[in-house]
Amino acid sequence: MRAEIAEQPAAIARTLDALLPQVPEVRRLAADTRHVLLIARGSSDNAAVYGRYLVEIHAGRMAALAAPSVATVYHSAVDLSGVLAVALSQSGRTEEIVETLQWARDGGARTIAITNEDNVPLSDTADVTLMTRAGVERAVPATKTYTTALAALAVLALGLREDQGMRADLARVPSAVQDVLATAEPAEALSGRLAGATSMVVSGRGYAYSTALELAIKLKETCYLGATGLSYADLLHGPIAAVGEETPALLVAADSGPVLPGVVALAVRLRAAGVPTYAIGGGAALAAVCDALLPGTALPEKLAPLALVVPGQLLVEALARRLGIDADAPRGLRKVTQTDN
Amino acid sequence: MRAEIAEQPAAIARTLDALLPQVPEVRRLAADTRHVLLIARGSSDNAAVYGRYLVEIHAGRMAALAAPSVATVYHSAVDLSGVLAVALSQSGRTEEIVETLQWARDGGARTIAITNEDNVPLSDTADVTLMTRAGVERAVPATKTYTTALAALAVLALGLREDQGMRADLARVPSAVQDVLATAEPAEALSGRLAGATSMVVSGRGYAYSTALELAIKLKETCYLGATGLSYADLLHGPIAAVGEETPALLVAADSGPVLPGVVALAVRLRAAGVPTYAIGGGAALAAVCDALLPGTALPEKLAPLALVVPGQLLVEALARRLGIDADAPRGLRKVTQTDN
Repeated sequence: MRAEIAEQPAAIARTLDALLPQVPEVRRLAADTRHVLLIARGSSDNAAVYGRYLVEIHAGRMAALAAPSVATVYHSAVDLSGVLAVALSQSGRTEEIVETLQWARDGGARTIAITNEDNVPLSDTADVTLMTRAGVERAVPATKTYTTALAALAVLALGLREDQGMRADLARVPSAVQDVLATAEPAEALSGRLAGATSMVVSGRGYAYSTALELAIKLKETCYLGATGLSYADLLHGPIAAVGEETPALLVAADSGPVLPGVVALAVRLRAAGVPTYAIGGGAALAAVCDALLPGTALPEKLAPLALVVPGQLLVEALARRLGIDADAPRGLRKVTQTDN
Repeated sequence: MRAEIAEQPAAIARTLDALLPQVPEVRRLAADTRHVLLIARGSSDNAAVYGRYLVEIHAGRMAALAAPSVATVYHSAVDLSGVLAVALSQSGRTEEIVETLQWARDGGARTIAITNEDNVPLSDTADVTLMTRAGVERAVPATKTYTTALAALAVLALGLREDQGMRADLARVPSAVQDVLATAEPAEALSGRLAGATSMVVSGRGYAYSTALELAIKLKETCYLGATGLSYADLLHGPIAAVGEETPALLVAADSGPVLPGVVALAVRLRAAGVPTYAIGGGAALAAVCDALLPGTALPEKLAPLALVVPGQLLVEALARRLGIDADAPRGLRKVTQTDN
């Protein structure tokens, strides 16, 4: 897992090189569609949450996250003409996702597959495949297949709305991810503070909400921690009552953007309630009100999730090591996930 | 809270009496729309999850759950012409929800408000208001405003697709809810088994996924328990590694329907992993494989969530009492929730 975390700058660069030439193809396919339906599960579903904000904020199109059981269990006929369905599965073989994309196609949708493997069932079902170039991922917890899926979603967003500024920012992503790899040491130190926790909350808002969800799932899967990923808003709506001294909070934020003031205010409130409050990113504003912070990225908020997750991955790997867990093969996880079997 | 739980049969009956005559009004408004956008937060968001399955499975229309920050923080312009936007807020005053419905309207959507109060800002923004008749809810944790919101969503579903069978089943809901109030005693007993837990998972699939989310939020808000609401599928995708002997599982299911076999299989798997496994509903099949079970309802799966949540509410109230918490006014909660302030 540690080696694969370090491979991400190169994996993202390869993926962008391969996929940016497909922008016109995405544009043509998307031309006769309006809304976007994202289909995924697990870590890919967290990537889809990022995609959802990109689609709605960058491209101004309504986006929905599919409930696969509507297709695979209830076999409901939904009219999806004029919908662009985008399915994400790193293996390209998760039956539930393949079946749901097929269902979307049967319902009239145009279809895109985002996958890390060639010649897989998911691609057979798709009008266009955006194949990420993470290479073989050996550790069971997804790292480079996750960030390269985010890169593919950024390419999708450009296909929905061209933006030269975003292209320029995308070109800076690999080096920005390289920069955050330098947080390995503070991540190691922070893992020491988390070693005694049995549960924690991970929170972010807007674009970085996806990062919070992804780190929560990683902490659960890889460190067996009762970690809950919550949006900033959902945390304030009640569950904040369930946090306290024994429930550390990890906040994730870009160094800039309109959600940052709210995240800073949340940190102040959590600390006032005695909650050990840690952060990834958020710049000087968040650093000033947290117990400890892993530096984030100066990438614009829209692309920050590609780098922001990396200090969190390092933290998860360090914590697993400290807890004596083999992060490459934690219990209960398989590489190709099947919901029903 | 306990008294208000018991008021639900009457509250649901009043709500159905008041809202069923509005079906033609909903039908007319929905006629020139296709997709449905649900806007909510907190318990209302859990109701919206139920609405999402109703819309997609009963009415065959694509449904999305809104990310309010797209409207309220990013102020993104999204073309929502041809979209039916449905906002749920029991107070009708949650600024974030009012602002998001206004944003949907500005984007061209037709708008519906589901609220328990008259003359509130949310209704001013809506083409049609479906006012639930829960009456004044004094306890901070929502109970009767939650189930009456589900009833309003069932009325919405009839407006999207008429179904005489569903109308007949709806008429049986108040007495079915009355029946599950009889689970107060087993709920009291089950609360004793949960009194030592600090975290647990609550899981359901399809229609009952909403019930699992709602009970998880109630356990967090009212019992300060680190409860995670997960779909059956998401639980299998990794987080199952984080459950064990100290993390009881509560499964929620209708007594019939296509998701039931999977929930039974999940219970078997959880118990094999040493997880204390409890259930609400699921009939004899689920009872046979759980450590303890609160009887559910014979209502068809599509309407079961209106009754299934009730044994869970009784369990939450009993557990709070056992833990010495005032369930009517737990810490960290207010009746009118505001995300930013």
